[in-house]
Amino acid sequence: MQAVDLIRKKRDGGALDAAELRAFVDGACDGTWPDYQVAALLMAIAIRGMTTDETAALTEAMVSSGTRLARRDRSRPRADKHSTGGVGDKTSLVVAPLAAACGLVVPMMSGRALVHTGGTLDKLEAIPGFRTALDPEACERVLAEAGCAIFGQTDTIAPADRRLYALRDVTATVDSVPLIAASIMSKKLAEDLDALVLDVKVGRGAFMKTEREARALAALLVDIGARHGVGTTAVLSAMDAPLGRAVGNALEVAEGIEALQGRGPADVERLAVELTAEMIVLAGVEPGHDAAVRRARRALETGAAFERFRTMVAAQGGDVRAVDDPSRLPSAPGRDPIAAARAGVVARVDAEAIGRASMALGAGRSQAGQAIDPAVGVRVLARPGATVERGQPLAELHHRDGVGLDTARALAASAFVIGDQAPDPGALVLGHVRAAPAAS
Amino acid sequence: MQAVDLIRKKRDGGALDAAELRAFVDGACDGTWPDYQVAALLMAIAIRGMTTDETAALTEAMVSSGTRLARRDRSRPRADKHSTGGVGDKTSLVVAPLAAACGLVVPMMSGRALVHTGGTLDKLEAIPGFRTALDPEACERVLAEAGCAIFGQTDTIAPADRRLYALRDVTATVDSVPLIAASIMSKKLAEDLDALVLDVKVGRGAFMKTEREARALAALLVDIGARHGVGTTAVLSAMDAPLGRAVGNALEVAEGIEALQGRGPADVERLAVELTAEMIVLAGVEPGHDAAVRRARRALETGAAFERFRTMVAAQGGDVRAVDDPSRLPSAPGRDPIAAARAGVVARVDAEAIGRASMALGAGRSQAGQAIDPAVGVRVLARPGATVERGQPLAELHHRDGVGLDTARALAASAFVIGDQAPDPGALVLGHVRAAPAAS
Repeated sequence: MQAVDLIRKKRDGGALDAAELRAFVDGACDGTWPDYQVAALLMAIAIRGMTTDETAALTEAMVSSGTRLARRDRSRPRADKHSTGGVGDKTSLVVAPLAAACGLVVPMMSGRALVHTGGTLDKLEAIPGFRTALDPEACERVLAEAGCAIFGQTDTIAPADRRLYALRDVTATVDSVPLIAASIMSKKLAEDLDALVLDVKVGRGAFMKTEREARALAALLVDIGARHGVGTTAVLSAMDAPLGRAVGNALEVAEGIEALQGRGPADVERLAVELTAEMIVLAGVEPGHDAAVRRARRALETGAAFERFRTMVAAQGGDVRAVDDPSRLPSAPGRDPIAAARAGVVARVDAEAIGRASMALGAGRSQAGQAIDPAVGVRVLARPGATVERGQPLAELHHRDGVGLDTARALAASAFVIGDQAPDPGALVLGHVRAAPAAS
Repeated sequence: MQAVDLIRKKRDGGALDAAELRAFVDGACDGTWPDYQVAALLMAIAIRGMTTDETAALTEAMVSSGTRLARRDRSRPRADKHSTGGVGDKTSLVVAPLAAACGLVVPMMSGRALVHTGGTLDKLEAIPGFRTALDPEACERVLAEAGCAIFGQTDTIAPADRRLYALRDVTATVDSVPLIAASIMSKKLAEDLDALVLDVKVGRGAFMKTEREARALAALLVDIGARHGVGTTAVLSAMDAPLGRAVGNALEVAEGIEALQGRGPADVERLAVELTAEMIVLAGVEPGHDAAVRRARRALETGAAFERFRTMVAAQGGDVRAVDDPSRLPSAPGRDPIAAARAGVVARVDAEAIGRASMALGAGRSQAGQAIDPAVGVRVLARPGATVERGQPLAELHHRDGVGLDTARALAASAFVIGDQAPDPGALVLGHVRAAPAAS
């Protein structure tokens, strides 16, 4: 099977079969396909697209390029949640311990900040001592102790994904729906799950700008999960404004802790409960959505979820004192307000602009591998619908000695649109995409 | 100007401007664009296409990546002919000295065999001692002496073309009309020409299978030539059956010599005269086509064209005794006939199958850089329209100790279709594409 023949087939709009996609993935991993051939096929895929069959076969080949997490505890269902990336989205910090408190085992393999969206690993590393690099043994130990673990992709899990992603990043082939789907699912399917809930973000601050695009990606993800025997549901959630008020790593951890203690922003809690309830239903712990929501709310109210978070942080080497007293988290020395240019009602807070402002301050990265500053970020003080006076602070920039401050100030100021009427609040959860009943 | 931004623009179907294409070509040449980014943009171009403006700008950037041949003799017009590649196409060997004998200077930078089509340099190297590597000084000396020179692309002429071609070859981006056009024209425009005639082959044995495709390429080539101030005409010529009877390097040189002596196959002579006449008219040596054809025929009849060929061969280090007595050219020890399976009339001789048979015997190459055998090849004995008896030889395979013989036999046998009625002979010259009058 010649690389150039497979590339030509996709160039001309043909569909590659499972053996051909396996040859591609294996060749990319073992180096028999040089970078330029991998890049050429990625571009052909980005333009020509892939069928669901192709995407599922690509995912399977990517999973098979590495090892899978070996499950030890079979007494409890194993479930995970994955988000396509948002601004201020700290729900993973809430969902993992919350689902664990509801009786699930949650091996949550997560990623890092990229472009304007945050990364769960970066956030947790704001907690002094927290280790996100867990080998499979250590991971199972944390899961046994806390019921949840949040950790980074190891070298042995879906190595094809790292190889392909590195090339996609520099060849303008990141935003291809089948490649995004295969990348996400190759990692999640390596976790040996019973249930998977996908939070597909839609809106100005998300990779998917329209509900139509988001539904297409959601349907593909759900289909691939179902084909691999994993109960999978996608939740479409709004990502026009930042979720909650905090954007930046330590700031988001603190807000996540508030949510785990039942005193976080309503949208963060609402989305975390919704996603956890879907996991609970899919895993068969509760028969219906309402019962699952009640169970999740109870786990927040009783402090059971927060206790799981404390246990996980301790088991992963983190300083629990910073969980109990978030003022011990890293804190930026500088504070700079963004003042309202006029009086009125906040009509819009652009998530992407806030995300980029936070990135400019040092909370995110424009290229993989860049160091980040855990302390810096943006606090949104006036959210959509808030009435503001002229000169009132709309946001507070947490900066270190002015690094990136001018850029961040301009971006953050541009994020706010002030009008005369309260905006339509809009729905947070826009819909669900569930698998068709299995044929078998 | 970030590479990834240009790649994204073309991925999404946008047009790149001259500065962007220059950045691409320069980056590909100096290595600041790594192979995988060059490959990704080539694939995006292959799928999305390019406008004529883009193709002309790409061509210009490729010409500017290297040096141009510096013209010394301004007393005579300078013209060239280029073919898109055929089977048995030895017209370059005839056209260069024929046009020189008609008063033109012909600096013919040529290529090598690729896939099933032959290469002029490989053919000439069948003449003992013939040197195709000429530096610009040597080239001008040969031109001063013979009026024509046939030589290979040097390192300094359009280096971008070599770099891009090497990647196109392994990324399934060879058969892209704008990339083909830019590749051809970047080399021809570096020759500092007054007139250029392009022989665009059409048919089963050509890269362009249909007249529609061929006309599109021809129009693009002519337009690019005109934009660069070079009088350019394209001749569409049929490439269903091999041109002439000889396919293979020494065999084609011998047939070319026959044509220069006025005793070659009618189609070879016809096409060589037609192409030369176009050069003569474009260069302003004769006012009209008929006068130009008469001038060219006279140069064949008087032996002036043959004399130019002898002079060129001698000036390029070749053994003139092999020109005067082609039995001194390399000759294959083995001969194997292909016999007619039935009596009838030859309806078709498939050029591509014959080209591949010759390649299998060692006359061509499947990969750049492969060594070839100058002696081997195929002689077509029964051409379309010939009446044959059962068992009569249709072709003769010239092989070396049976190398590739089984494959070649199967290919050559499959090339012949024998029917009951004489086929429509079809036209050799299918049409012309000429430049619109210049706007200036």
